[in-house]
Amino acid sequence: MEVQSWGGCLLTLCTTSRFLHWGRRRGCCMQSKLMEYYRRKVSRWERHMKLYSEAAAVSNITVTEHKVTFDPDASWLKFHLGISRYALYSRDDLAVPQLLKEMQSMTVIGADYTQDEKALKGACDCTQVVKPSGHHLKLALKMQNFAKAMFKPMRQQRDEETPEDFFYFVDFQRHNAEIAAFHLDRILDFRRVPPVAGRLVNVTGEILQVTHNEDLRAVFFTSPANNTCFFAKCLYVCKTEYAVCGNPNLLEGSLSAYLPGLSIAPRISIPNPWIRSYTFTGREEWEVNPFFCDTIKQLYPYNSGNRLLNIIDMSIFDFLIGNMDRHHYEIFTKFGDEGFLLHLDNARGFGKHSQDEMSILAPLSQCCMIKRSTLLRLQLLTRPEYRLSDVMKESLEGDPLQPILTEPHLLALDRRLQKVLRVVQRCVRRLDEDEVITKDFIKSTVKPQTATDMGKVR
Amino acid sequence: MEVQSWGGCLLTLCTTSRFLHWGRRRGCCMQSKLMEYYRRKVSRWERHMKLYSEAAAVSNITVTEHKVTFDPDASWLKFHLGISRYALYSRDDLAVPQLLKEMQSMTVIGADYTQDEKALKGACDCTQVVKPSGHHLKLALKMQNFAKAMFKPMRQQRDEETPEDFFYFVDFQRHNAEIAAFHLDRILDFRRVPPVAGRLVNVTGEILQVTHNEDLRAVFFTSPANNTCFFAKCLYVCKTEYAVCGNPNLLEGSLSAYLPGLSIAPRISIPNPWIRSYTFTGREEWEVNPFFCDTIKQLYPYNSGNRLLNIIDMSIFDFLIGNMDRHHYEIFTKFGDEGFLLHLDNARGFGKHSQDEMSILAPLSQCCMIKRSTLLRLQLLTRPEYRLSDVMKESLEGDPLQPILTEPHLLALDRRLQKVLRVVQRCVRRLDEDEVITKDFIKSTVKPQTATDMGKVR
Repeated sequence: MEVQSWGGCLLTLCTTSRFLHWGRRRGCCMQSKLMEYYRRKVSRWERHMKLYSEAAAVSNITVTEHKVTFDPDASWLKFHLGISRYALYSRDDLAVPQLLKEMQSMTVIGADYTQDEKALKGACDCTQVVKPSGHHLKLALKMQNFAKAMFKPMRQQRDEETPEDFFYFVDFQRHNAEIAAFHLDRILDFRRVPPVAGRLVNVTGEILQVTHNEDLRAVFFTSPANNTCFFAKCLYVCKTEYAVCGNPNLLEGSLSAYLPGLSIAPRISIPNPWIRSYTFTGREEWEVNPFFCDTIKQLYPYNSGNRLLNIIDMSIFDFLIGNMDRHHYEIFTKFGDEGFLLHLDNARGFGKHSQDEMSILAPLSQCCMIKRSTLLRLQLLTRPEYRLSDVMKESLEGDPLQPILTEPHLLALDRRLQKVLRVVQRCVRRLDEDEVITKDFIKSTVKPQTATDMGKVR
Repeated sequence: MEVQSWGGCLLTLCTTSRFLHWGRRRGCCMQSKLMEYYRRKVSRWERHMKLYSEAAAVSNITVTEHKVTFDPDASWLKFHLGISRYALYSRDDLAVPQLLKEMQSMTVIGADYTQDEKALKGACDCTQVVKPSGHHLKLALKMQNFAKAMFKPMRQQRDEETPEDFFYFVDFQRHNAEIAAFHLDRILDFRRVPPVAGRLVNVTGEILQVTHNEDLRAVFFTSPANNTCFFAKCLYVCKTEYAVCGNPNLLEGSLSAYLPGLSIAPRISIPNPWIRSYTFTGREEWEVNPFFCDTIKQLYPYNSGNRLLNIIDMSIFDFLIGNMDRHHYEIFTKFGDEGFLLHLDNARGFGKHSQDEMSILAPLSQCCMIKRSTLLRLQLLTRPEYRLSDVMKESLEGDPLQPILTEPHLLALDRRLQKVLRVVQRCVRRLDEDEVITKDFIKSTVKPQTATDMGKVR
């Protein structure tokens, strides 16, 4: 079965969101649109660099100039074009290993704050008690072939555990969790996490000297130990105790491949029905109402199609990595309601190897449904020859920052996998097997509303 | 020699600041003034408690009511009356061990933010890059006999070291450093640090349930691990990751005895001539000019009397504890220029046992002067039978939170003491011994200016 992808140029589908036909039309508009976009970016960059270098010379700022290349075979471009209604990439997509390799080693030609960080500037709601503080530092890095990746620096040693008194919403973000989550998602055959690679970044050569953002340049400093450091964007006050430092310049971090820009491939962000309360004492309905899923099942878009099953997949993924912070999920509007759920932002996983937070599995345990394909994959990963921890370990060995996970975190995956299967078994004992283990790709039977009814278009 | 003290009632001295005569006049105004002040406080408290309890009952707030006692023999009162021109307490002052004992165990009847914390509220200069963030939590606790102590909770384990990339001005505050500094100051015979005791505080019973401050009550919460926690005053955003938590209620902390109120015993805060730059790259004159002390020696109030020698004492004390954060010092205005220097706020000491920060000794090494009494004491503490680390260890064993310092920190004291003596030896080799080793209590020869010329009156 050939899958429908961006490359397949199904631009009109976002309005109908029904997929009665698919088939790849070669050389069509999406591909040429992306190519055109890329070409424009390169020329704009070249013009900008010329002007910037002249200005920098006058102001005595050192800027490393790198030649950019326009490469129609760039792996990031292939990755973007390969995104389909079912997954971010196909199992045998050669662009993914290529993209991982490039993120690991390709010359960085630009660094800047991400749009999220820029949006935060001065716009923080100071009355929010539980707002995470500004020390979750992430940067957008641009590679020589215009691949863009989000850099999250190391904040925590591999063997450090989340303190028991921390709420999930203030936990550190872990670069290694971001890397490990990509590998796990791929092993689970979900392919809903964009490629993530580890990299030792030279904060001087690959950030400070290639950024054109004065604000970013201004937060660099030399520490008492003579290391080059920089801190998170200073919302109110720059706090050096939350700075990250190279040694003296090299700093570990994760690089996550960017998705196609929102102007090309819009996404919407939808609140997770099993969202947690982001206050100290609040409780959400799903926490107190064991029949919560019955209500959800009645509600659009969870009342038809795969959406609820996709939420359950996501909860299994989050339970395995121990991520309690999935307040929203995103989907591409162009694939309509039937599109897959993106598993973005996984850096709060892998915080406590000794704790299995069963509440994360609430969508599975309350709805008692699971896709047959997901279940089969989970069962496969309990077999001695495909033991999840072994497969993960092997997969993670390909990353330059290996070891990515400590042994207790790897073993926790096996233990948690067993717990997922036990929840499924309990459901099967209680209900009919056919009711619990569901065929994938149920036809959507309810007329969908427009995307904006469901959530915020990003 | 009898010393002049508050009890000696030398109220007029703050305007002349010359001490040609001293002698204790019994039963005089200072004692009665303090007693009167205390009596008023007790009656006001009793009235307040009556009203507050009625209001609390209406609002359904649990407030523990404790009977207060007026005790004319209270140790804190004796401590206040015993403060002299030379030191905060005399060697054989029985009030000090008594006060330590009371701070360790006496019933707490009230808790509130300190004046410092209250002043911070909304008044923070957000443009200050290096401003320490708001997580240096301290509270004022009131005991049953109206003794007041400043509580600093544990933020760091005994064996944790300050990260090498931290600037001194953003380092954590350590409760055990506060305790150890008091003991060291006493062993050095300076007696310029108010008594400090360790205590396991019940954050529910001894803070939450006895505070009448709604703001303080509002920052308490229960952590995911079911511990009672509270965070530092929320300047902009309360950050739970900087909260402190009991286990489930008990929390280690230091209790420092309050000095007499500023209305009774005003103090001024004077910038340390050897102040450090509180920016990332700035350097102060003393760091680049080896003849800096020659300039200082010409300037009032360092050009006569003991002031410069007192600064040198302070630098020796700070070098031994590894405190780089002595930007200001305080003196009591009533004792004039000849009064001793208070060594307050020592919680940034004992951060790195393996590093001896020689720049802290700059006043000694640049001025090449030391009081004979100080030198003799230091030499005594190198003798095997009085080895500083042994004497410290023995002294610290009296504290309920023992062990206060890890072995490497104790041994660092011996090593640093040797380094102080080597600096003195080098000075003696270079200059005349009489020039270096100075008799205490040099007569002031220069007409002093008024206190406000020198610094900010607190």
